[in-house]
Amino acid sequence: MADDETPSEHRRGMGTSRLEAFSDGVFAIAITLLVLEIGVPAGSSDDLLGAVADQWPSYLAYLISFSTIGAVWLAHSAITDYLYRANLTLQRLNLLLLLVVAFLPFPTRLVAEYIREGDAERVATTIYGLNLFLVSVLVSVVWRYAVHAKLLRPDADSEEIQVLTRRLTPGLAGYVVLIVLGLFAPTLAVLGYLLIAVYLIVPAWSLRAHRP
Amino acid sequence: MADDETPSEHRRGMGTSRLEAFSDGVFAIAITLLVLEIGVPAGSSDDLLGAVADQWPSYLAYLISFSTIGAVWLAHSAITDYLYRANLTLQRLNLLLLLVVAFLPFPTRLVAEYIREGDAERVATTIYGLNLFLVSVLVSVVWRYAVHAKLLRPDADSEEIQVLTRRLTPGLAGYVVLIVLGLFAPTLAVLGYLLIAVYLIVPAWSLRAHRP
Amino acid sequence: MADDETPSEHRRGMGTSRLEAFSDGVFAIAITLLVLEIGVPAGSSDDLLGAVADQWPSYLAYLISFSTIGAVWLAHSAITDYLYRANLTLQRLNLLLLLVVAFLPFPTRLVAEYIREGDAERVATTIYGLNLFLVSVLVSVVWRYAVHAKLLRPDADSEEIQVLTRRLTPGLAGYVVLIVLGLFAPTLAVLGYLLIAVYLIVPAWSLRAHRP
Amino acid sequence: MADDETPSEHRRGMGTSRLEAFSDGVFAIAITLLVLEIGVPAGSSDDLLGAVADQWPSYLAYLISFSTIGAVWLAHSAITDYLYRANLTLQRLNLLLLLVVAFLPFPTRLVAEYIREGDAERVATTIYGLNLFLVSVLVSVVWRYAVHAKLLRPDADSEEIQVLTRRLTPGLAGYVVLIVLGLFAPTLAVLGYLLIAVYLIVPAWSLRAHRP
Repeated sequence: MADDETPSEHRRGMGTSRLEAFSDGVFAIAITLLVLEIGVPAGSSDDLLGAVADQWPSYLAYLISFSTIGAVWLAHSAITDYLYRANLTLQRLNLLLLLVVAFLPFPTRLVAEYIREGDAERVATTIYGLNLFLVSVLVSVVWRYAVHAKLLRPDADSEEIQVLTRRLTPGLAGYVVLIVLGLFAPTLAVLGYLLIAVYLIVPAWSLRAHRP
Repeated sequence: MADDETPSEHRRGMGTSRLEAFSDGVFAIAITLLVLEIGVPAGSSDDLLGAVADQWPSYLAYLISFSTIGAVWLAHSAITDYLYRANLTLQRLNLLLLLVVAFLPFPTRLVAEYIREGDAERVATTIYGLNLFLVSVLVSVVWRYAVHAKLLRPDADSEEIQVLTRRLTPGLAGYVVLIVLGLFAPTLAVLGYLLIAVYLIVPAWSLRAHRP
Repeated sequence: MADDETPSEHRRGMGTSRLEAFSDGVFAIAITLLVLEIGVPAGSSDDLLGAVADQWPSYLAYLISFSTIGAVWLAHSAITDYLYRANLTLQRLNLLLLLVVAFLPFPTRLVAEYIREGDAERVATTIYGLNLFLVSVLVSVVWRYAVHAKLLRPDADSEEIQVLTRRLTPGLAGYVVLIVLGLFAPTLAVLGYLLIAVYLIVPAWSLRAHRP
Repeated sequence: MADDETPSEHRRGMGTSRLEAFSDGVFAIAITLLVLEIGVPAGSSDDLLGAVADQWPSYLAYLISFSTIGAVWLAHSAITDYLYRANLTLQRLNLLLLLVVAFLPFPTRLVAEYIREGDAERVATTIYGLNLFLVSVLVSVVWRYAVHAKLLRPDADSEEIQVLTRRLTPGLAGYVVLIVLGLFAPTLAVLGYLLIAVYLIVPAWSLRAHRP
């Protein structure tokens, strides 16, 4: 009995503890690096308040990207909560997810720099939306693979599993709509990304639904 | 009995271990990125000592921001020490806290660059103070929500809880006073932020109070 | 009996938990910093799409370095999975490994900047290959030392140990071939590094071999 | 009995797990940020090999700082291995240690930039040495405080404690000698810092002494 438990305990911790620690590290760095992109032009001492106010696209981009990475981290935490063990395929799918998460600071910078600049804004917004979309797709893929490969805890409630599967899906459709919208009205699309982010991060909606 | 304990053990670890790891990551990065802002102008080889000395506002800003983030991390550790489990609302409030902590390097840079530059100093100091204030408010909010939503360990001493609630409050008043003071005497306000930071980080005061 | 277990439990956790946490931190930061190198020249608003497309060497370098660091992290996880305890020599060999992993962003930048620039490309590619080679050598050294110094779990299957030893070796030969190739055809060598990286990270190959 | 153990278990984990995670994060970031300082001047494509070779002071500084931070991390790991619990004073002393560790990239950059530049080299080397010295002092202070405040594991061998106390001391004297030497022969002092770093990180010396 005791022998039965030790190896299973071991197998449980095998992949997931370092997978969690490494992923937490990448999420934490990607989310914190975003602030490095924000700055006022050198020599703004004559009108610093104006110069700071002029950086609003940077704050907006910071807010959207921070909220999005935060929401993805929340989803990732929910996934690893159900995870009993990892295999090599899951580890690699997770690396692909981290690849696109760690890439996000680049299109964030593009949006912050080229918003309200006509065609350039369209390009920046589309790249940004595609990156957000890929992040969402890969979160879903990681989760569905874990379900499919039976890597979840044996005691995981199948209804809870379906709830999480549903919760990870609608974001995808939202991003597709906003990417297409962004080709015609890029500023609207940016506001859409902000709405998704605010919806994901502001606790108001969850107050009713998630009260223990 | 054993069945009773396993799920509660699980629920305990559910949110808090990754919440702690992710928060530690963001705090550690925010606190370490601050040094990237420090540097002497290129080609200071004629008088490097003078050039290094001229960077004193950068060292001051580094010291204040490092101490403040360090103190917030200490408060955050104290909170998670009492935390039995997390829910989605707590996770999101915690993300809001990390959002403003990760933002701090930007106003830190503003203070380092525009101190002693008249109106610009006033603007930089006010933004810096507002950021510090928001950080303090959100630490308090996270703690009060955890108390209110009954997320604390059942064995947490109610007197200890009140002590921690009190300890997290006075900083708020101090920051409000210094933000207002900063509109008239920004350099004084910066020294005030330094005093709060030194008070929070120098061990002298705690030697008596916290001896085990 | 209980006394026997507590010290061994302690010795187990002694070195490895912080070794894992610190290594995860360095891997996560090295892999995330790579995106800081990517950016379009200032004032590309006239043709942002073209400017973004022109950065393809940066994306290629990002992809190769991310995949390589990701694969090294996977190998490192596999090693620490078998590790029962650490000693000072293992800690120092691990630091040497982290030294060359943390260095990788520099040659990555060189390749991204000087690809397709004649002799400069040759130099950049060779330095990049040497760095990748050193990383692979040190992963092997850390593993072989752990086997040799009997730091592995007593229950580790000796066949599994041999499989891991073999899996860590072929990369070395591949890098030697590509470094030599890079002296004559640097672009081909870069594609070779990409192939190794894709082979290491894309899950397709592992689907059959690693199904639990 | 069980009641006795649970609170002590709790007290054990109280401070140290997050103290370790946060410190690991700061060490990992400080050690990895060092590579950001390395780069060749823009447009070195005519003679990239020469430009890369010209950066030798950067590699030297990277090597010394990486090794020093690595060695401090090793000492810090040894300390927390003996640590049974933390108190607020230890947490704050640890924050002071992290403050000076996280500062190291700045003087590292100074040395890399101003080596072989006469007086500027003297200034850069002295600041660098002072920073290394402060790091060593604070590692010692953290350890001695932990011993003095009886925060170590009850089963810690008093002889082992004395060995660690001795091992943490000689570095201090070495740094004082090199700081003074650096006022007259800065290049020699830099080589001295390299020797200390190599001595601390190369496994050769430890092979005999630390065989399990």
